Amino acid sequence: MGIAQAYAMAVCGRIQNLLLLGRLTMRFAAVALLALSATLARADEGMWMPTQLPELKDAFARLGSSKSIDALADLERGPLAAIVRAGGGTGSFVSSDGLILTNHHVAFGVIQFNSTPEKNLTETGYIAAARAEELRANPEFRVLVTTAFDDVSERVLKPARGKRDRAYFDAIDQAIKREVADCERAPNTRCSVATMDYGARFFRITQLELRDVRLVYAPPRAIGNFGDEIDNFMWPRHTGDFAFLRAYVNRSGAPADYAPANVPFKPASYLKFSTAGVSDGDFAMVAGYPGVTHRHRLSREFAERVEWSAPLTAAVFNELIAIIEARGASDPQAKVRYAAQLAALKNNLKRADGERTGLIRSDAVAKRRAIEQAIKDEIKAPDQRAQRAGIRELHQVLNAQTAVRERDILLGWVVGQSQLLRAALNLNRLALERQKPEHAREVLFQTRDEPILRAQLEQLDRRFDSQTEQALLTALLTRYQALPDGDRLAGFDAAFGRDAISLDRVLKAAFRDTELTDKAKRLALFAATPNAVMRSDDALLKLTQPLLEDLLTIENQRKARDGEQLRLRPQWIAALRAHYRATNQPFYPDANQTLRLSIGRLEALHPRDAVHYAPQTSVIGILEKAGAKPFDAPAPLLGAIQAKNFGPTADATLGTQPVNFLTNLDTTGGNSGSPILDAQGRLSGINFDSNWESVSASWFFDPRYKRAIHVDVRYIEWLVTRVYPSPSLINELGLRR
Amino acid sequence: MGIAQAYAMAVCGRIQNLLLLGRLTMRFAAVALLALSATLARADEGMWMPTQLPELKDAFARLGSSKSIDALADLERGPLAAIVRAGGGTGSFVSSDGLILTNHHVAFGVIQFNSTPEKNLTETGYIAAARAEELRANPEFRVLVTTAFDDVSERVLKPARGKRDRAYFDAIDQAIKREVADCERAPNTRCSVATMDYGARFFRITQLELRDVRLVYAPPRAIGNFGDEIDNFMWPRHTGDFAFLRAYVNRSGAPADYAPANVPFKPASYLKFSTAGVSDGDFAMVAGYPGVTHRHRLSREFAERVEWSAPLTAAVFNELIAIIEARGASDPQAKVRYAAQLAALKNNLKRADGERTGLIRSDAVAKRRAIEQAIKDEIKAPDQRAQRAGIRELHQVLNAQTAVRERDILLGWVVGQSQLLRAALNLNRLALERQKPEHAREVLFQTRDEPILRAQLEQLDRRFDSQTEQALLTALLTRYQALPDGDRLAGFDAAFGRDAISLDRVLKAAFRDTELTDKAKRLALFAATPNAVMRSDDALLKLTQPLLEDLLTIENQRKARDGEQLRLRPQWIAALRAHYRATNQPFYPDANQTLRLSIGRLEALHPRDAVHYAPQTSVIGILEKAGAKPFDAPAPLLGAIQAKNFGPTADATLGTQPVNFLTNLDTTGGNSGSPILDAQGRLSGINFDSNWESVSASWFFDPRYKRAIHVDVRYIEWLVTRVYPSPSLINELGLRR
Repeated sequence: MGIAQAYAMAVCGRIQNLLLLGRLTMRFAAVALLALSATLARADEGMWMPTQLPELKDAFARLGSSKSIDALADLERGPLAAIVRAGGGTGSFVSSDGLILTNHHVAFGVIQFNSTPEKNLTETGYIAAARAEELRANPEFRVLVTTAFDDVSERVLKPARGKRDRAYFDAIDQAIKREVADCERAPNTRCSVATMDYGARFFRITQLELRDVRLVYAPPRAIGNFGDEIDNFMWPRHTGDFAFLRAYVNRSGAPADYAPANVPFKPASYLKFSTAGVSDGDFAMVAGYPGVTHRHRLSREFAERVEWSAPLTAAVFNELIAIIEARGASDPQAKVRYAAQLAALKNNLKRADGERTGLIRSDAVAKRRAIEQAIKDEIKAPDQRAQRAGIRELHQVLNAQTAVRERDILLGWVVGQSQLLRAALNLNRLALERQKPEHAREVLFQTRDEPILRAQLEQLDRRFDSQTEQALLTALLTRYQALPDGDRLAGFDAAFGRDAISLDRVLKAAFRDTELTDKAKRLALFAATPNAVMRSDDALLKLTQPLLEDLLTIENQRKARDGEQLRLRPQWIAALRAHYRATNQPFYPDANQTLRLSIGRLEALHPRDAVHYAPQTSVIGILEKAGAKPFDAPAPLLGAIQAKNFGPTADATLGTQPVNFLTNLDTTGGNSGSPILDAQGRLSGINFDSNWESVSASWFFDPRYKRAIHVDVRYIEWLVTRVYPSPSLINELGLRR
Repeated sequence: MGIAQAYAMAVCGRIQNLLLLGRLTMRFAAVALLALSATLARADEGMWMPTQLPELKDAFARLGSSKSIDALADLERGPLAAIVRAGGGTGSFVSSDGLILTNHHVAFGVIQFNSTPEKNLTETGYIAAARAEELRANPEFRVLVTTAFDDVSERVLKPARGKRDRAYFDAIDQAIKREVADCERAPNTRCSVATMDYGARFFRITQLELRDVRLVYAPPRAIGNFGDEIDNFMWPRHTGDFAFLRAYVNRSGAPADYAPANVPFKPASYLKFSTAGVSDGDFAMVAGYPGVTHRHRLSREFAERVEWSAPLTAAVFNELIAIIEARGASDPQAKVRYAAQLAALKNNLKRADGERTGLIRSDAVAKRRAIEQAIKDEIKAPDQRAQRAGIRELHQVLNAQTAVRERDILLGWVVGQSQLLRAALNLNRLALERQKPEHAREVLFQTRDEPILRAQLEQLDRRFDSQTEQALLTALLTRYQALPDGDRLAGFDAAFGRDAISLDRVLKAAFRDTELTDKAKRLALFAATPNAVMRSDDALLKLTQPLLEDLLTIENQRKARDGEQLRLRPQWIAALRAHYRATNQPFYPDANQTLRLSIGRLEALHPRDAVHYAPQTSVIGILEKAGAKPFDAPAPLLGAIQAKNFGPTADATLGTQPVNFLTNLDTTGGNSGSPILDAQGRLSGINFDSNWESVSASWFFDPRYKRAIHVDVRYIEWLVTRVYPSPSLINELGLRR
């Protein structure tokens, strides 16, 4: 996710959705989106599992790290133990008193929660002069400390063996739910199961859930988000995208809700600021929670992204963007309410374009095909017959998926891009799920999910405009109506008819007559019995009941296909692993929101003919960009630069104060706030963005273009010591003055 | 002038205006816009007069030229004799048969003249297979070969001595007119007098006027103008902005109008294509006709540009642009008619912004002030009293100019941005001037200018829309009405009243009732006697009569001030020259459309923090940029690149075919098409644009940012030999295959 989108969603109070999206993605990673294949692995490429670090000894030495691999790979001590999930991103402990360094955009919800029109911390930033002045985070903000990472493959896979289709899926699904439920019996614990290698292995992650988090320090908006959307995905960059939080626990050392008497959490480990500085070619390592990558998918899925889903996404999202902007131009309230959705659409449009462009530029489809061809020749032995058959079956499953892909993606958008219609669907679905025993309830509709569903219903008015939603639904359903007869569904056809006139009439009537636009009514239905909901004569609830039936049909079909993919993809991953072993390349699983490491170095970027970007920026660039918002660098910053008020944080080679730096580290969304470590394992920076050319790295790693963008810790140190000084942080972090 | 504007003006058939503008600029350079001061001269800075070349011997040697200065400085032989004025730019002879190489955008009017909707050479380009297929240029297109450059300072200055104010101005003006008239008695000769150093010296330029010019070769639009407005002022660049023309004369060797029996002109000299290629750091020299620079102006004039005229221009032009775009959005015909004016406004807006930004970035005002302070200390001797008094007087003249500057600039725009109102003013003015003896007639209203005035009246419908013009005039005159009482003029106030209501009523009535919208009526009035025009009861002619009186008053005031500046600025230039001598820096006069040379080298550009641009581009960049118009590189070009169909024109270091290169040469508008010579005096490229950062170089040379952009002759050679081959050109130029 782009930074601009993160801000926009936070601004609109949707940080909860962000968390939800995170979990959804996890869910998809765990169950639905699967892939196999091989990459052109280079030593610098790879989001390695900590357990793989010993495989990388040579690369470590070559890149110049003096730190021992073993010291780095220890989850319970050393740098990795200092790394946490913070909100929607990553953070790291930087003091023994639970101080956490993360991105300004990751902490934005916390800053916003403490802002009022009169005292707007999102603009001014914040400096807590003492512990007592540290400000409590929004209640749903969490810091998660991973305490265990256990291979539960055997327990998850055993009940599924011998099964197929939906039965295979359900067996895995139930086993995962059991693992989570068992694990969460321990107090203050949040658990999940990560699917590794598309179903080959399963890992249970146990995390300590720290609920009392406080804001310690945030720079002004014009430093923390200098450049905003204009500089989003851009290098050279000049952004101080950082903030300090602190985790608190009760006097017994256990996680607790906010209470003034709580005391700082004592982490097992924390990172120390590097004073050495970085320069071109220097070793760098990142550790964090990258979201989802698709690098090991089949070449046909690469081709599908380039030729079908990216262009279709671009066409549909351009249409939806035009609708929201046109409505916003004439109605300021609608404009505000759809700001977050618009930002998300634009961000995803940019991403789809970037992925398509990048995959074409890297000739990725042809390269993946070549690897698949090589593997075909490697699995010709008689005893590999079952593996060959499994791969053939996998292709058949994907064929079935392709047959319904347009219908499924369109209906996914009908749900995802609507607000009130989705609320009606959710109320109906909840009524259905509440009638099942807890363990059989669908993920996202279990008792543990109900608070989030309720909050969504409560906050709906802040992001809903009836005319906008009807126009969006008209655009999407018109595309649905144009599908061939065999691709459509009875419930949808009966509800909306087969033509524009009927669609218009149905939508108008439902949105005119429904009482779901009334918050009290929505919450009453949330509290009501399943029977009451199902017998309600609300126009939109009634309209969506047959739609839900169709969607459940689709969901069941998808789960059956997912079951087959969970069963079959591991066959392909095994062949792929063997290919990597045979060609002497280490293999890493696709990213799935679990802790990963990447090693590399500071490296310049040569994005286009005759264009070269150096891997470091300095405050000179802030003077060059300074001007109107979002480049409205504050006066104390400009003054300090002009007065050359630099000290030990200046860079000898640059001859001035450094700001950001660029590495070839392998990152993706979710790595926001991840610490960058130098050759001594000290903190040299924090990750906050990627360059535009590396958007397609979620599919294909191209060493020519893949870069990650970091805040230099020396910039943080300089701001905290000289520009917006915090004596208490200087003291706690032992900063140089 | 930007390339985009040149195209837009040509497209709208305004190439005549371009010529007119050129002459206007010359006029201003010669008489009105004057300046003095000193620059931070570096060896690489400077638009040198050919006679100054001996001063540059050291720089030549240092930069690595093996060519002797004397061989280069000879106007009658050697490279300089090969350089010509071609249309609105520069060109050079490249064969003994009158073949001329210039920019595609300089030759665009010629290409357009030969285009029809069915056979659109502006799109497809053109290759003459044989001499007989070379296509005649538009009749007004001229190639001018400078044959003499004579110092006439004594004859021009003598009649002015002892005079002041308007009398000084008139004495110079009359002397110049006499020089031109005497000189043009020779057949086929075009003459002008250039004011050097703001009135210190005067040079008479004698030029052979070649009137039969033909199109030999033009690349397709998508090569010659690859990138169009998007890439305008941009580096890295990938444009093949070149075309070949040929000059013809009659069988006696004399200039003649087009006739099939004419024969190629035999130039005194021509340039040979370099086969050595260029690379970073290589020597380069440019020779051409740079337009106008203001580098030797007073610091107060630098400050005025930054603080007053650039911001005011931006504000007013933004307003006019919004008016034209709003009208164009609802009326396609108005949109077409104002395309050229809109492009010119945008280009000038961009220029004003670029100058302001650049002058601030270079801290130019402070640097100019420091030089003036130093000079103040250098002219303290008793015998320099007159010089000191002259400089004080000059400041008083500028004070007087400042007092009326807002009124004068606004009324200048009222005339310049209108079409029909200006036509009415011109008809009235012509009636006035035709009653004077020829020598006393105002420049641009002499008999020699009448064909251009008539053509403007004839073509007016193609660039006039009544509603648009009224809206533009309303915006400008509203600003005029807001001026303090003392700044306004009786005629304007009487004509338009003092408020919005009256202004609206007067404009509406005049544009409703005038018959000047009828071409036949306009041409009849052009042919009519002065008395008939002055007694006409046409609404717009009558409205503009008192306006013309006011404008003549302003003109007279301006001429008096110009006279004083012509008299006084040379005092300052003398002090400035002395300062340069004392600090051991060579001094060059500000550019004034006379032949100049600049020497330098290929040099990378570091425009912003962490951004580096290499000084050469290759065809790889064409593949990267290729896509929708204006980046729609044609299939034969893309095919040749993909097939790596390169030969001897490839660059060993780049490992592929080069396209454009970048030098630190000192150029400005008017240098379009200028040849770039290598260390052996051979043609290594042709100039076609500057980078965005050097827009402010018209005022201040900052070696960090000043670059010029050229087509590598190897790109031309490659296109002509392999992509769009011309066997006859290959033969005539002796190109490598």
